[in-house]
Amino acid sequence: MSLLTVGTVAFDKLESPFGKTDRILGGAATFIGMASSLLGVKTGIVSVVGDDFPQEYIDLLKSKNIDLSGLEIVKGGKTFFWEGKYHNDLNSRDTLTTELNVLETFEPKVPEAWKTVDVLMLGNLHPLVQQSVLDQMQKRPGLVVLDTMNFWMDCAWDDLMSVMKNIDVISINDEEARQMSGEYSLVKAAHKISEMGPSTVIIKKGEHGALLFQGERRFFAPALPLEDVFDPTGAGDTFAGGFSGYLAKTKDFSFENMKRAIIYGSALASVTVEKFGTESLAELSRERLSERLKQFKELTDFKIEL
Amino acid sequence: MSLLTVGTVAFDKLESPFGKTDRILGGAATFIGMASSLLGVKTGIVSVVGDDFPQEYIDLLKSKNIDLSGLEIVKGGKTFFWEGKYHNDLNSRDTLTTELNVLETFEPKVPEAWKTVDVLMLGNLHPLVQQSVLDQMQKRPGLVVLDTMNFWMDCAWDDLMSVMKNIDVISINDEEARQMSGEYSLVKAAHKISEMGPSTVIIKKGEHGALLFQGERRFFAPALPLEDVFDPTGAGDTFAGGFSGYLAKTKDFSFENMKRAIIYGSALASVTVEKFGTESLAELSRERLSERLKQFKELTDFKIEL
Repeated sequence: MSLLTVGTVAFDKLESPFGKTDRILGGAATFIGMASSLLGVKTGIVSVVGDDFPQEYIDLLKSKNIDLSGLEIVKGGKTFFWEGKYHNDLNSRDTLTTELNVLETFEPKVPEAWKTVDVLMLGNLHPLVQQSVLDQMQKRPGLVVLDTMNFWMDCAWDDLMSVMKNIDVISINDEEARQMSGEYSLVKAAHKISEMGPSTVIIKKGEHGALLFQGERRFFAPALPLEDVFDPTGAGDTFAGGFSGYLAKTKDFSFENMKRAIIYGSALASVTVEKFGTESLAELSRERLSERLKQFKELTDFKIEL
Repeated sequence: MSLLTVGTVAFDKLESPFGKTDRILGGAATFIGMASSLLGVKTGIVSVVGDDFPQEYIDLLKSKNIDLSGLEIVKGGKTFFWEGKYHNDLNSRDTLTTELNVLETFEPKVPEAWKTVDVLMLGNLHPLVQQSVLDQMQKRPGLVVLDTMNFWMDCAWDDLMSVMKNIDVISINDEEARQMSGEYSLVKAAHKISEMGPSTVIIKKGEHGALLFQGERRFFAPALPLEDVFDPTGAGDTFAGGFSGYLAKTKDFSFENMKRAIIYGSALASVTVEKFGTESLAELSRERLSERLKQFKELTDFKIEL
């Protein structure tokens, strides 16, 4: 059971109605890797940072049993930086700064030991970068999961469609699914997106939960209703990491098991949003995760005679 | 097992991206009554119409086993009329016309035979009208459910707070819950609203499902993902009627049974939105309802080891 992810390792600077941060640890691969590793999966990251990236963060990721042999450190380079401010409802945000820095010329290199992973999670990056990681695999992973965003649909549609043909699962949000498919109905959107390649389509709806589509089969998991969402940054990546990590751990890619994987992803995401950045996820114990899973079961479970 | 509802019986004129209607049968009590009666519950309506209200609609409601002894027909009066146009996403709409007509001077009279009902569903009307129906009861119903809207919060807050003290369940949408409580978090909103009177709070989130709160207990039911939502008019009232009707039918007001009631309400609402007005609900067979309930079970059911 092993999972490799390619994605950003970044500095985030955040402001929410609850406070603000200096530059803290962020990035898609960070959240994906931490979520997967938390489930006891052998987890590796392929990414790039500058030599401004502090040893403290390297140590943190290593202490979470994340393999960093695929993390390139560019001498004299600066780490990818994103600054954002959330509005009062926390459902919308403004990007204040995006500095690509070392990401601009990133050419991912997959370490030898990671070329035969069970699950490959392609975090949100240029589709050509995602494809290049897939191309370096020695054998086709048992499952390939992809995340993407509106930006690549606008700027790299053909490349995105190429990599879409080679994946099993796409995990995107509702707005992105609508843009990608040109359909407002998420049922129709999922159907059209599936015709672009992936047999399984996950549509994330933020505080409204997530939908899983595979052919005519459908599953819905709510987000846990929380007293306060503190900082939504990384929730989608944590979800994807928890989902992919659970599948890597169990090596069972059936629809029934994907349902459980969605619940694991949702439970982990509900932890991430409780504090800024990775703080809450980094503190998470197995006991607290079990408690969260139990809350999901209680929240959705009903018995009915048919 | 009996349910009485007070609410509008109306003419609706609708426009959605899928087409438009002339004046058709609408109104909260219409949808609530039809949903409840469909479940085999003895159902009565207290409402008012003008003598422009066609015999055809009276016959339709009677054919659905709805008792109309509490439906006042005002000679020379005109029936309440609402005209609305839905935007492309169907989540928002513009009210084009509201003619209160006979509703303006409506003084509900509860027929003798209906003063000892099991469940009373107070549809969205002026809180004083809702209270007057409650006051006419010979004995306190086993369960009192209330719907309301922003308008009464703006214009009749004190009256609304008075009736709130006398009910068991409130069923409102997320926007209304936020206005009523002054809280953005729906968990906090439900808690505050519960302190105003009702021990149980239902927050409807439209296409995103519904949340049930009772003390620290929470339940969530999704809306069924549909290929197309044709016309959302009446979905909330159908939901409330299905919920209340199921509880009247089973006479079990426990939290566990309320969960089932939410699923029944959601299943019936998913039928209402498939065609204009009451058309789809009027055609619904018990078999098709069972099929819908099964879809809800499949959509949300998962097994997980904790």
